[in-house]
Amino acid sequence: MLKYQNIAQKIYDSIYQQQLPKGSQLANIEELINQYQVSRTTIVKALARLERQGVIYQVQGSGIFVRQRKKSGYLNLATSHGFTDDLGDLPGFTQVLAFDVIRPNTEIQANLNCNSDEEIYYIKRLRYADGKIYGLEHSYYRKKLIPYLNKEIAKGSIFEYITQTGQINIGFSDKYIELLTIDESTARYLKLPVSSTALFMHEIFYTSAGEPFDFSTIIYHKDNAKFCVQSHAK
Amino acid sequence: MLKYQNIAQKIYDSIYQQQLPKGSQLANIEELINQYQVSRTTIVKALARLERQGVIYQVQGSGIFVRQRKKSGYLNLATSHGFTDDLGDLPGFTQVLAFDVIRPNTEIQANLNCNSDEEIYYIKRLRYADGKIYGLEHSYYRKKLIPYLNKEIAKGSIFEYITQTGQINIGFSDKYIELLTIDESTARYLKLPVSSTALFMHEIFYTSAGEPFDFSTIIYHKDNAKFCVQSHAK
Repeated sequence: MLKYQNIAQKIYDSIYQQQLPKGSQLANIEELINQYQVSRTTIVKALARLERQGVIYQVQGSGIFVRQRKKSGYLNLATSHGFTDDLGDLPGFTQVLAFDVIRPNTEIQANLNCNSDEEIYYIKRLRYADGKIYGLEHSYYRKKLIPYLNKEIAKGSIFEYITQTGQINIGFSDKYIELLTIDESTARYLKLPVSSTALFMHEIFYTSAGEPFDFSTIIYHKDNAKFCVQSHAK
Repeated sequence: MLKYQNIAQKIYDSIYQQQLPKGSQLANIEELINQYQVSRTTIVKALARLERQGVIYQVQGSGIFVRQRKKSGYLNLATSHGFTDDLGDLPGFTQVLAFDVIRPNTEIQANLNCNSDEEIYYIKRLRYADGKIYGLEHSYYRKKLIPYLNKEIAKGSIFEYITQTGQINIGFSDKYIELLTIDESTARYLKLPVSSTALFMHEIFYTSAGEPFDFSTIIYHKDNAKFCVQSHAK
């Protein structure tokens, strides 16, 4: 974790430990520099990060304020933490339906920017949140960038595992969303009628060095999955 | 527009005028300070803004790089520019179905943080993109914060109008998304069968001073509306 990320986390923790309501004013930049004993650049970057995460807003010439916290039970689309962390406030459960090492087809190659002979982990998982079926996920991870995964790890948070073991530093993600009609196999997993409409997400996650390491498609259960985006400033 | 926003726009324009492909390296921070003749803080804030917008990524100790540009035809959820600007690459058209000044009910009061006797513009619009029905929008604007709107303005981009006339400086937004079954009236507008599933968005836009000025609900056409989120860093 970089220094500004660490400071951002400390400010975040302090906001929620104190349960500051929306609109609460934080210390100003000078005070934060003193309090955390870091450079102005570190504080500016930490505040930019908290703005990006929808935690605070800065009013020119006036101060730094706390934003409305996101409603419980909504998956945050504007972060790149992975399912488990983004849904933090609901208890989750994951069923691993397939775990294999495969060679990528052309679609996977294009999305992961890799060759046909690269080894790829293919993981199919059924996600639950708050006891309900949340979504069916097909994920492709590059073994070159994530040397070790197993079925046990896939039952929990792969993102937590790969970041904590230092295999990957997550950088950013591209997510594309559309509504699709589900096929018979998906309908069975989601326990929905065939031809139901579902929200379909196509995601690519990149390392902080800009290399794609995870390509996933997720079909979300129309009644159980909800989303939010807390975005910032033009 | 603040100085760092102006610099961010200049860097953005330079990337797309040069048609730099993804992965292209930009000048480093020292060079950008020289090139634009602004302070380090301004450059750091401009770069944070471009990261937030999914335009660039910064690799510690290595440099600043161009991200993959979003695919055409997807509405960007991670910005707060309003429909017209977020969908920039598709030609749009707007039909104004209702334009009134009303007193807010309790739901509108809660979302706009206003009293029951405040005047509110209610605007109902049918949105088209690329010649197709895109969504049905119900919007509520606080007249207190936006003194002047009319039906003519509502045919175009209200966000462009209120920012260009200096009435509002847009700060940030909260967007909540879920799938719902549409009612008969909505089905008629969207030209879809009754009981179709649609993506339903509940948005609140805030000024840069943190005051909510626009509460909207939008029901998107399931076959025509697509979305993207280019998010950044844990």
